[in-house]
Amino acid sequence: MSTQDELDRKTKPRGSLGRLEELAVRIDAIRGRDPLRAVIVVAAGDHGVADEGVSAYPQEVTRQMLANFAGGGAAVSVLARQAGAEVRVVDVGVGRPTGNIAVEPAMSREECAATVDQGRALARELSSFDVIALGEMGIANSTVAAALAAALLGVEPERVCGRGTGLDEAGVAHKVDVVRRALAANAGEDPLAALGGRELALLAGIALGAERQIVLLDGFISSTAALAAERLEPGTVGKMIASHRSPEPGHALVLEALGLRPLLDLGLRLGEGSGAALALPLLSASLAILNEMATFDSAGVTDSGR
Amino acid sequence: MSTQDELDRKTKPRGSLGRLEELAVRIDAIRGRDPLRAVIVVAAGDHGVADEGVSAYPQEVTRQMLANFAGGGAAVSVLARQAGAEVRVVDVGVGRPTGNIAVEPAMSREECAATVDQGRALARELSSFDVIALGEMGIANSTVAAALAAALLGVEPERVCGRGTGLDEAGVAHKVDVVRRALAANAGEDPLAALGGRELALLAGIALGAERQIVLLDGFISSTAALAAERLEPGTVGKMIASHRSPEPGHALVLEALGLRPLLDLGLRLGEGSGAALALPLLSASLAILNEMATFDSAGVTDSGR
Repeated sequence: MSTQDELDRKTKPRGSLGRLEELAVRIDAIRGRDPLRAVIVVAAGDHGVADEGVSAYPQEVTRQMLANFAGGGAAVSVLARQAGAEVRVVDVGVGRPTGNIAVEPAMSREECAATVDQGRALARELSSFDVIALGEMGIANSTVAAALAAALLGVEPERVCGRGTGLDEAGVAHKVDVVRRALAANAGEDPLAALGGRELALLAGIALGAERQIVLLDGFISSTAALAAERLEPGTVGKMIASHRSPEPGHALVLEALGLRPLLDLGLRLGEGSGAALALPLLSASLAILNEMATFDSAGVTDSGR
Repeated sequence: MSTQDELDRKTKPRGSLGRLEELAVRIDAIRGRDPLRAVIVVAAGDHGVADEGVSAYPQEVTRQMLANFAGGGAAVSVLARQAGAEVRVVDVGVGRPTGNIAVEPAMSREECAATVDQGRALARELSSFDVIALGEMGIANSTVAAALAAALLGVEPERVCGRGTGLDEAGVAHKVDVVRRALAANAGEDPLAALGGRELALLAGIALGAERQIVLLDGFISSTAALAAERLEPGTVGKMIASHRSPEPGHALVLEALGLRPLLDLGLRLGEGSGAALALPLLSASLAILNEMATFDSAGVTDSGR
């Protein structure tokens, strides 16, 4: 009996739990129906393009936030506790910025491949978790993600540049200009290596390496890393679930390219894996419906067949 | 310092947690910031209008579902357990249908007032809970809610009649006709008494009686009861939070009339309080952000002021 057939025998009109039913079917297909253990990986790195003044925050904030994650005071720390998830912070270059993509590649192909492999290995190391959520921290990394998304999707920078963590209109216009320069400076290069940044390469590697694990996307940056993974190995999207849609204009485009519909739409634009943490209870709830609800037969409720 | 000022000192760009921040501000204003204890009231009743063949299910299902709630196998039972909420089922006329609104009033004004008062008393009895979610069960009650919503909003039946628990197109057309007859048969009467049904009157009474408690709305039927409460005592909406938007066409209209934006939009059309249960983790998460996140000062993170 298919998972949907099982859901159709539960004491509710068919399909009346909407996307929760889709979610149960998808999770059951990816990794089965036991209760979910979840980890949020927060990949943190610094970016040479921060020198272009594309963030409202100074680069030192990336390192300061590492301490905040360790102390449990960051948003993702709080939201992960609420959701019963672990947080694993991975430093992939804090204080050791990548090249400034406005004028040069972020990384060599070799360094990028090694970072992707590090992500694959991390997914294996995290095999006791059923859900790996892709979080990130890195001042200027929404510019990096915008450049990578523009390259992968073949769209103009205007369509993928947003306010990030707090730019005003002039700041967004400057960011568009920087992304345009980055695309020109790195034309013909491997997009993930030349534009991507180390935390995006690590997250792409996790998505590629996950086996019978759900890869839970967070915001624009996380989802752009996931798109890079899908382009490297088509079909990788089959493991993915989109937790939310952020107000970053590029996020909707990236999710559309992946063919994923986000669960939440709450105006979240923080990153860190915060939106993924908020979606975790929906994943667990969908499995509980599958595992715990009575059937029409078992509960003696008349089934209309609708 | 305002709640928003407090949130603005947390280690995140201002406003970057979007609607989660709005939610924290609203909850703090209604009942403070201690962890939330939640109860889902499932008001159950039968409706004379079921005789018109407006539901995909026979009337006996209302009573069968009472047993399913008691046994813990219904959707709301499962989702409430997931959310750590209690369920309180209140039988307000199962097996004792109201009048058939297509030809006569559902209740007398006196019976309606007594049922509203029963709801007010229940809210007081539930004063140890910070959140009271409004759930319902009653075969044919989406027709009842459609009639009540059409009367309260002054809109045509077509705009508030949907598939309910599983009508096809012809079934919806018939439902529209029944609602039109109900509005004609009860013109000039008190809408809640004449059209409303007992579970809607009880839920309206709970909304009116809640004090320093959050009234969490579920779907179309629950929200229509809340609109009736707001019309009886304007300002009652100040205690309310809308958990989700269902595909029932009337739900969006009712929420708009209340000035409430739903948190979730997952295609849920079951009722019982199921959508409210799914939104509870978001409420708790918003308070956790307020209570547990570090400030820029405490964490030593540079604040850009954005």
